[in-house]
Amino acid sequence: MLITRLFKFSASHRYYDEARSPAENWALFGPCSYPNGHGHNYVLEVSVRGIVDPTTGMIINLKDLKTVVDQEVTQRYDHRHLNLDVDDFAGTQPTTEQVAVAIWQRLVAKMPIGELARIRLWENDDLYAEVSP
Amino acid sequence: MLITRLFKFSASHRYYDEARSPAENWALFGPCSYPNGHGHNYVLEVSVRGIVDPTTGMIINLKDLKTVVDQEVTQRYDHRHLNLDVDDFAGTQPTTEQVAVAIWQRLVAKMPIGELARIRLWENDDLYAEVSP
Amino acid sequence: MLITRLFKFSASHRYYDEARSPAENWALFGPCSYPNGHGHNYVLEVSVRGIVDPTTGMIINLKDLKTVVDQEVTQRYDHRHLNLDVDDFAGTQPTTEQVAVAIWQRLVAKMPIGELARIRLWENDDLYAEVSP
Amino acid sequence: MLITRLFKFSASHRYYDEARSPAENWALFGPCSYPNGHGHNYVLEVSVRGIVDPTTGMIINLKDLKTVVDQEVTQRYDHRHLNLDVDDFAGTQPTTEQVAVAIWQRLVAKMPIGELARIRLWENDDLYAEVSP
Amino acid sequence: MLITRLFKFSASHRYYDEARSPAENWALFGPCSYPNGHGHNYVLEVSVRGIVDPTTGMIINLKDLKTVVDQEVTQRYDHRHLNLDVDDFAGTQPTTEQVAVAIWQRLVAKMPIGELARIRLWENDDLYAEVSP
Amino acid sequence: MLITRLFKFSASHRYYDEARSPAENWALFGPCSYPNGHGHNYVLEVSVRGIVDPTTGMIINLKDLKTVVDQEVTQRYDHRHLNLDVDDFAGTQPTTEQVAVAIWQRLVAKMPIGELARIRLWENDDLYAEVSP
Repeated sequence: MLITRLFKFSASHRYYDEARSPAENWALFGPCSYPNGHGHNYVLEVSVRGIVDPTTGMIINLKDLKTVVDQEVTQRYDHRHLNLDVDDFAGTQPTTEQVAVAIWQRLVAKMPIGELARIRLWENDDLYAEVSP
Repeated sequence: MLITRLFKFSASHRYYDEARSPAENWALFGPCSYPNGHGHNYVLEVSVRGIVDPTTGMIINLKDLKTVVDQEVTQRYDHRHLNLDVDDFAGTQPTTEQVAVAIWQRLVAKMPIGELARIRLWENDDLYAEVSP
Repeated sequence: MLITRLFKFSASHRYYDEARSPAENWALFGPCSYPNGHGHNYVLEVSVRGIVDPTTGMIINLKDLKTVVDQEVTQRYDHRHLNLDVDDFAGTQPTTEQVAVAIWQRLVAKMPIGELARIRLWENDDLYAEVSP
Repeated sequence: MLITRLFKFSASHRYYDEARSPAENWALFGPCSYPNGHGHNYVLEVSVRGIVDPTTGMIINLKDLKTVVDQEVTQRYDHRHLNLDVDDFAGTQPTTEQVAVAIWQRLVAKMPIGELARIRLWENDDLYAEVSP
Repeated sequence: MLITRLFKFSASHRYYDEARSPAENWALFGPCSYPNGHGHNYVLEVSVRGIVDPTTGMIINLKDLKTVVDQEVTQRYDHRHLNLDVDDFAGTQPTTEQVAVAIWQRLVAKMPIGELARIRLWENDDLYAEVSP
Repeated sequence: MLITRLFKFSASHRYYDEARSPAENWALFGPCSYPNGHGHNYVLEVSVRGIVDPTTGMIINLKDLKTVVDQEVTQRYDHRHLNLDVDDFAGTQPTTEQVAVAIWQRLVAKMPIGELARIRLWENDDLYAEVSP
């Protein structure tokens, strides 16, 4: 059984691989390679698997889950430029895939109870990445 | 292969554990412990796994699925107070987790064809619980 | 020109007119008349008309708008039973129409800058009321 | 790890089994059996499982995924009548289940990289079918 | 003050002007001119302006509004082909604009109380037409 | 009568008034003043008022509307940093209000037929600005 809470943050990013030529970058990344970046309203679904406590009816208290996600994700990524303000994407691109992987790594060992079962990260209404163990 | 139909109901509920002090209840449940309760527009996703009938193209006729869900869930929970009008949550709280578990137990043996594969219950746009076998 | 911010709250309510018979109440209100009430995830759109400050680019600072709406609406209605916990609906029913009217009256004289131009209150995805001057 | 992109198309369809009587068709399919059909805004979620390329940050370039889905699905189904304009549903009905199966079969061998992990097809906001290996 | 209720129906349609050549039809309508048509999940917002009854809290009883919309719109358009099954679009095309106009004309004189203030018709998530007096 | 089409673009921005101190900027703009900016998935609703052509059923051909919006808005703002890549916000901030005003000014004289009646710009699901004549 899983409980899932959604979180939101806004961030900007850019895709550009310094090891490739400008023409190769354009072919790979198109307008995502513009020098000053662009941004998104990200939506993050965090799913926790666990036992329902019979007296509280909860797998995890949502306040505790929010505390962890705020500390590990929102305070680092929200209103930030993911290339310039965050260390997590050195040597790669802050694609939906890589942002999801970074969030998974930040959260997986931090659950106060239960276990992280799945995260889903929406970059916009048409695109999401999913990580599970 | 799964077919999933969404159903909606509106209900009110309250979280309060009589075995705990008022202060403990407030610490655990916050405003969910207010004495007169509050409510939600619940959305229920019911997923059925099965074989597609080659002539009808269906795993299950959606009219038959609706009949079961109406009888087992909607007629019991819709426009109701989950603590006061329903027996399913005695000794626990009607949290998203526990409402999902109760719905699973009500539906799992009642599929006229196929098998119940997953239910997902949304309490609001930001929170859902998921049960599967 | 208008700027509109959405706010959310969860509340329960019941429709019952003591001056009418139980049968008349049922005919008028159907399951909304069940004694213990039910509830909704309300969404409130608050629209402010005004002049855009040329240096801040804002009609109203959204933090100031949030402060007013929290104080006048959210702290009174959120996680509450609108019949039992709030005085605003004595002698009438907390329908979408009446809740919208009550919110309009609470907010209209409280804008720190600009003027309240329109409120829209959604009871669920299929129903909303709208008040304007 | 999965990356999922959503695609949209509009199509019309009709459910009618020539081997059954008109009365049986009505009992089975109701208004879906009207002779001239009706239609939907379909939403298709295509999920690809694979390895994230460390320099591009991508499982699959979304432009390449879009090329395949356009060629195999959108150009065949979009703005079309699924019974009259498409061969995929001879002898069965273009139900959500069968359209999802047909899309799966069209896409499964065509991924330029990674593997097709799941498709989800929404017929409207309340109904979807899901296929996975 | 306005109360607005949403209604849904699914229908198919085709755009083709017999007075124009095939090439002109293609230039004007593109894939909307395919001979067998396509379809949509329409969403209709019906807004009624009126006085709130002080004892019921309602501008109009939503059951009465639903009865009128079912009779005038849903029973005629739902699961239908708007060109072939409905008389309302002879000599024109069932565009979002024209379907909205036809619905307005069907509903405007039929409100049991209050007055029709606005209708908004969504053809999909990206397109809507609006009619008001 | 109005027809409205939605358009989407992704952009980044920052709020910072050089004429104010860092502390004043923080007090006014909070995390929106971070030096490297952040971003959003913007949704733009463009409403055109006009006469429905009786043979085409259209106020404006949506292809023509799309051409104008692409040229005036999408090609300038999409995947761009609104402070660094666009001239429209010199001396002010690219707030939802100011971006809406800039879009209005770009579009108002460019309608090939009918007249621009209203634009609504969503910065995220909880905030929008509206401009009308």
